[in-house]
Amino acid sequence: MNTNKRTNRRAFLKGTTLLTAGLAATPLTGWAGQHELQQEESMYLIGPRKGYSPHIGTLLSTMTMMRSWVIDTVKDLTTEQLDYQIDEESNSIGAMLYHLAATEKYYQLNTFDDIPWGEWSDEVNAEWEVPMGLGKEARDKVLGNTVDFYLTKLAEVRKVTEAEFAKRDDAWIMKSEPFFGNQPTNNYCKWFHVCEHESNHRGQMKFVIKRLPS
Amino acid sequence: MNTNKRTNRRAFLKGTTLLTAGLAATPLTGWAGQHELQQEESMYLIGPRKGYSPHIGTLLSTMTMMRSWVIDTVKDLTTEQLDYQIDEESNSIGAMLYHLAATEKYYQLNTFDDIPWGEWSDEVNAEWEVPMGLGKEARDKVLGNTVDFYLTKLAEVRKVTEAEFAKRDDAWIMKSEPFFGNQPTNNYCKWFHVCEHESNHRGQMKFVIKRLPS
Repeated sequence: MNTNKRTNRRAFLKGTTLLTAGLAATPLTGWAGQHELQQEESMYLIGPRKGYSPHIGTLLSTMTMMRSWVIDTVKDLTTEQLDYQIDEESNSIGAMLYHLAATEKYYQLNTFDDIPWGEWSDEVNAEWEVPMGLGKEARDKVLGNTVDFYLTKLAEVRKVTEAEFAKRDDAWIMKSEPFFGNQPTNNYCKWFHVCEHESNHRGQMKFVIKRLPS
Repeated sequence: MNTNKRTNRRAFLKGTTLLTAGLAATPLTGWAGQHELQQEESMYLIGPRKGYSPHIGTLLSTMTMMRSWVIDTVKDLTTEQLDYQIDEESNSIGAMLYHLAATEKYYQLNTFDDIPWGEWSDEVNAEWEVPMGLGKEARDKVLGNTVDFYLTKLAEVRKVTEAEFAKRDDAWIMKSEPFFGNQPTNNYCKWFHVCEHESNHRGQMKFVIKRLPS
């Protein structure tokens, strides 16, 4: 099983090269291989992805779909709408988008660089602490940006996630440490949380959007 | 690979029996087997689950974690709090919880029974149309229930999902039809949506909870 998996993965990674070299007959066996071919058609075919180990690729495909829905939700908002607050305690949509990028950045540091949660460098904190924390400070400081500013932040951080995911394997995504509720928590769980966390805030964004002043 | 997978799955399904029969030496090879043993320790070890095909088990483990977080968010709310509306257009937390159960029910009918989306029987509609639709009708009709009412609905529907998942394999979870945006959408995607949809509404529930009258 492991050998087969490795062979498949090599085939996926090398797919383009092999085709270029005229070795297209190299078989991509099983549904995983077929699925690879389908993925270009639709982001709604959740499953393994070319260049990633099977579980990492599947996880990434959910993250890609989720991100696309977030982008669709906010892409036409003006700066004024991105800054809008429903009440004195609420987070603006802009601050929430920045917060999603910050969250992904911190999970990169924790899972890719093995930095214990919260032990970030001053440099990291200077850049990310405010959007990560949301609340009053974000309300005061995260203002006046276009949607492109936030979407660029999100895209830049995601690019790093994708590159780091590509270097790792399924043994890594299953690696765990005490984390949520001090219970054993694997990297898959942390990254699933990064993904569902986007949905959590997208629910709030949609709530705000329905109530924007016309 | 398939043979090995089947052997593993049989071993998982029969694990308890084998142990009882003194056949504990039957090997569970690879990380999947090790992971099976870990899952009892923590719901935060996302991955394959005993009694389910690898991808279905992994998906289910994310759904189980998400559901647990939803329950934790609402479990101490009173009927009055569950009925509370932030404004005239908002959905109560109770209605949102019922809506989550309805959503899962409809995805069961669509993916397990192959019923095209929207072509539900009168019997199904009579039971589920109001919570599924949310909005004014749910605001008028979904009222006065304790949190146990909603959590029981959710648990009953989930039990069916788990039983049906256990009967199916990874080829089924990858099966697709035109669905979201009329693009090819597989069962994995539909069920990932059921999962992230709980997070979407949990984000809104938390927003409401912070603003409940004291």
